[in-house]
Amino acid sequence: MKTEISNSLQGTLAVGANLIDATLDRLLPSADQYPFSIHRAMRHSVFAGGKRLRPILCMETARMIANKDGQAPTGVEELGSVLEMLHTYSLVHDDLPALDNDDLRRGKPTCHKAFGEATAILAGDALQTFSYETLSKLRCPADARVRIIEEIARGTGTVDGMIGGQVVDLESERIEPSAEVLEYIHRSKTGALITASLVSGGLYAGGTDVDVTRLRNFGRSCGLAFQIVDDVLDITQTSEQLGKTAGKDTASEKTTWPSLFGIDASIARAEELVKNGCAELDPYGARSQTLKDLAWFLIERKK
Amino acid sequence: MKTEISNSLQGTLAVGANLIDATLDRLLPSADQYPFSIHRAMRHSVFAGGKRLRPILCMETARMIANKDGQAPTGVEELGSVLEMLHTYSLVHDDLPALDNDDLRRGKPTCHKAFGEATAILAGDALQTFSYETLSKLRCPADARVRIIEEIARGTGTVDGMIGGQVVDLESERIEPSAEVLEYIHRSKTGALITASLVSGGLYAGGTDVDVTRLRNFGRSCGLAFQIVDDVLDITQTSEQLGKTAGKDTASEKTTWPSLFGIDASIARAEELVKNGCAELDPYGARSQTLKDLAWFLIERKK
Repeated sequence: MKTEISNSLQGTLAVGANLIDATLDRLLPSADQYPFSIHRAMRHSVFAGGKRLRPILCMETARMIANKDGQAPTGVEELGSVLEMLHTYSLVHDDLPALDNDDLRRGKPTCHKAFGEATAILAGDALQTFSYETLSKLRCPADARVRIIEEIARGTGTVDGMIGGQVVDLESERIEPSAEVLEYIHRSKTGALITASLVSGGLYAGGTDVDVTRLRNFGRSCGLAFQIVDDVLDITQTSEQLGKTAGKDTASEKTTWPSLFGIDASIARAEELVKNGCAELDPYGARSQTLKDLAWFLIERKK
Repeated sequence: MKTEISNSLQGTLAVGANLIDATLDRLLPSADQYPFSIHRAMRHSVFAGGKRLRPILCMETARMIANKDGQAPTGVEELGSVLEMLHTYSLVHDDLPALDNDDLRRGKPTCHKAFGEATAILAGDALQTFSYETLSKLRCPADARVRIIEEIARGTGTVDGMIGGQVVDLESERIEPSAEVLEYIHRSKTGALITASLVSGGLYAGGTDVDVTRLRNFGRSCGLAFQIVDDVLDITQTSEQLGKTAGKDTASEKTTWPSLFGIDASIARAEELVKNGCAELDPYGARSQTLKDLAWFLIERKK
């Protein structure tokens, strides 16, 4: 049974990643589009690998909410692709010398290493801009489109979204954060975009306010669990396994979930969060199985 | 007569700038909103001065198209404020060490000088993100909102928008541009956002496709004229008059409109462009007078 689910999940992940790669390739300006350098830099970072987890979460949520014999709503892969563009823009800027100063990302040169710092700053900007251009033309009613845009902008914004998390994360390198601040960083930096991926998928499929609340609760729990596991992986895995420099947090004496609570308690907390998060999806019965499997998959990367 | 128009225009500019300042203050997260540093950095740059020309062009266009006894459509100042946020985000990133490396902007320390480079990168990002959050909630029908979002995202994008212009401008410091490339830079870097300001104002007021075409033609002409005059001002004005370092283009031997065609021919070209642009607005009769006056004002800064 465990193997069967795992095989089915492998299929979901592989099919989803292929669909998103093809859609990103179709949507993004081509490498031969003037001005060339910016479009090549955008594509360099978008196609540097990555599991396309946020798009897959979005598409599976839309499939669950639409409830049409397992069919995903037409065009939802375009929304999914935007979530990957936004994730990539945040990585491109996060890797810059003034921020994390990383040379490698997913085993390849970071954008500023390959194209120079000025182009990397503008390529990150452009991925964000192009995301909203794409969202404005999604194949769902305009009412849903503006709600999706609001949800995604908040999830990547400053108050309790992605940029807010990045800011506090940067500041916490100088001032040791409390457990409360660390939770804010985790919920905002990674969790908020994961939640926006789920909620926007639900809105695309015509979800109600009750659906949105359930998806938001599921996303908040799983997003926090995902980031806790990320901190654990930084300690327990090699650079090769991670596709980026391992042990950076320990080397920089950065406060992380495992440094505050230990590895075992961190893993236990992540598992509890996913369990509680999945309970939010029980009203959808068997249709929620893939999303639940995905949530467990996110934290099982630790093994 | 000339003085009368000028007084009336002064009023339009002063009233418009005050309304935009108040609206930006109301919309933007307060300086006491956690995380503090990012919100203070955003506000530092947004409130560093500036004439709020793009918002005023947007609001005056909406007033002209709405044709309701000179009343601007309710809430259009929120759209106008977004145009200023986007303009500011581009300045914050343009001023960074990896791009133009400017210490002063409108006579005040640039964002990275005041808050550090990491915060400045994220503050620019955040101003863009918050712009789309604000657009998603504008007080016009959802159909108009998604068209406005598309128009603005294209106008600030890579293909023939603001970022495209910045990229080619940066590259032209190394490879001397042809007159054709220089016109691409000018049209894209500054003209595209000015055009988007006009067109989005027209869409907010319920403009038709015919209105949009006229506004786009007016914007393309006046936007190019505006940037030509900007190049002239870099030569003819002092740093104090400009509020930024003057003579930078000459010092860096940068190719500009006056370096290719001379100052007098550049001014003549700008005047011709504004004249032709204004003719596009003739069908609106007397209602178009303020916009026409604004167009002439934009290039009369040269005196």
